[in-house]
Amino acid sequence: MIRVIFLGYGNVNFHLCSALIKQADIAVIQIYNKTLIDTAFLINSIPFTSDLSEIKAADIYILGIPDDAIASFSEIIPFKNKLVVHTSGAVEMAVLSAKNRRGVFYPLQSFSKYREIEYEQIPICIESENATDLDILKKIGNSISNNVVEINSKERAKLHLAAVFVNNFVNHLYQIGHEILADTTISFDLLKPLIQETANKIGGLTPFEAQTGPAKRADSKTIEKHLHLLEESEYREIYLLLTNAIKKSHGKKL
Amino acid sequence: MIRVIFLGYGNVNFHLCSALIKQADIAVIQIYNKTLIDTAFLINSIPFTSDLSEIKAADIYILGIPDDAIASFSEIIPFKNKLVVHTSGAVEMAVLSAKNRRGVFYPLQSFSKYREIEYEQIPICIESENATDLDILKKIGNSISNNVVEINSKERAKLHLAAVFVNNFVNHLYQIGHEILADTTISFDLLKPLIQETANKIGGLTPFEAQTGPAKRADSKTIEKHLHLLEESEYREIYLLLTNAIKKSHGKKL
Repeated sequence: MIRVIFLGYGNVNFHLCSALIKQADIAVIQIYNKTLIDTAFLINSIPFTSDLSEIKAADIYILGIPDDAIASFSEIIPFKNKLVVHTSGAVEMAVLSAKNRRGVFYPLQSFSKYREIEYEQIPICIESENATDLDILKKIGNSISNNVVEINSKERAKLHLAAVFVNNFVNHLYQIGHEILADTTISFDLLKPLIQETANKIGGLTPFEAQTGPAKRADSKTIEKHLHLLEESEYREIYLLLTNAIKKSHGKKL
Repeated sequence: MIRVIFLGYGNVNFHLCSALIKQADIAVIQIYNKTLIDTAFLINSIPFTSDLSEIKAADIYILGIPDDAIASFSEIIPFKNKLVVHTSGAVEMAVLSAKNRRGVFYPLQSFSKYREIEYEQIPICIESENATDLDILKKIGNSISNNVVEINSKERAKLHLAAVFVNNFVNHLYQIGHEILADTTISFDLLKPLIQETANKIGGLTPFEAQTGPAKRADSKTIEKHLHLLEESEYREIYLLLTNAIKKSHGKKL
C-alpha cells in the first residue's frame, strides 16, 4: 500500500486525488491546503488540514501549488528525507528543497475543475533522484494511466512549451473563430466537426502532411479576401504571421 | 432521381462523389476533368470525359476546381439554364457565370485524399438563386449529412475565414509542437491526448471558458522560461503574439 498525501489542492491535485482514491494499492491519507477548500471538491472520507504541523507520515507527498511557490513551500514543510514531488511541467525538479527526496509527477493534460478526465490515455511524466523513488512513481502512474514515461527536467521544459502551442494557443485560435462568427447568424457549433477532424487527422498523418488551405497553396486571392475581412481586426496580425509561417514551411515564399 | 455530374475532380469532388454514389435517389452519371485522373480515385462505373463537348444533360453540375478558375470555367461550359454550383468556401456565388442557374454546395471540412470522411456530421452550406434549386441542394445535402444549412456568400466568407483559424492555423501549431520535440527524445504521440482533449473541451465549454495556461494566468516566470527556450527560434514571434492576445483577452495586460 502506497500512502499518499496531497499538499495543495488545485485543479491538478483534485483530479489526481479523484483518480488515486479508486486504486486498490494506494491510500490517500490526507489533504493539506493553506485555505479551506470548497466542499464540493473535497472528497469526503479523506482527512483535511490547513495546519502544516499536522501533516502525517506518508510514502509520497504530491505538491499541487503554483509554480512560483514550489521552491519556498518545499523549504517550509516540516519533515525531511521523504519523497516529495511536484506536478508542474515547467518547473525543474531541482527547484524542490534538497532536504527531501525529490521527484516530479506531471500529468500532461489540461485540467478544468468541472470537467471529468479519462486518465487512461494521459501521459504521466515522471522523474526522480533515485531508482527506488522512480519505482514508486511508476506504480502510482501505472495505476491510473497506460502512458507513464520517464522524462528529465530539461526535456520536460520543451514538452511543456510544445503543450502550450498545441493546447493554449490552439484554444485561443478556437476563440478567434468563435469571435469571427459572433457578428454573423452562424453558430460556432458549425465549426466543431472541422475542429474534431483537425485533431483526428494527426492520428495518422504528420501535421506537415495534414496541412491544407490557402496559405499552404499560396493562394494569394483568398488570402487577400481574408485580409480584407480582417481590415480593422485585432486578428489581422495573427493571420499574417501564421499564413507566412505556413507558406515558409511549405516552401512557397510571398 | 437527381442526376449529378462532377466538373473537376479534386479532393472535395472525389470525397463528395464517393458519398453520393451510395445514395438511392442520386445518380452520378458523369465525371469531367481537364486531365486524366489517377485511376485509384476514379470510381469504376462512372463514365469519364476530358472533353467539354461530351458533357451530358444532368440536374446539377458540381464544380470542383481551383477557386480562381471558377469564373472562367463557368463561362466556357457549353450549356445554359442548368443548375451549376461550386464547392468553395471563399468564393461568392455571383462569381459563377449568369448563363446558368447558380448555387453553392460547400462541405465545411478539411479533405485529404487518402483519408476517409464521415459525412454525417459535416456541415453542408448551401446557397442558390431560387427556391427550387435550393430544394435540390437540400435533398443532396440531406442524403449525406445531418447538418445542412443555408448560408449566403457574405456570411460564408466569414465562416471560411474562421475555418482557416481553427483548422489550417491550428494544424500549424501542431506542427510547431512537433518541431519543438524534434530535438528531444520525446515522441509527438505524447501530445496527442492533450490535442484531443483540447478539441473535446469546447464541446461543453466556450473557448474563452476552456482557456488555461501561463498566458491566461499572466504567469510571467513561465513565459520567460519559454521565451528563453525560444531564444533563437522562428517560433518566438508566434509565441509572443499569441501569449499577448490571450493575456489581453483575459484582461491581464503585460
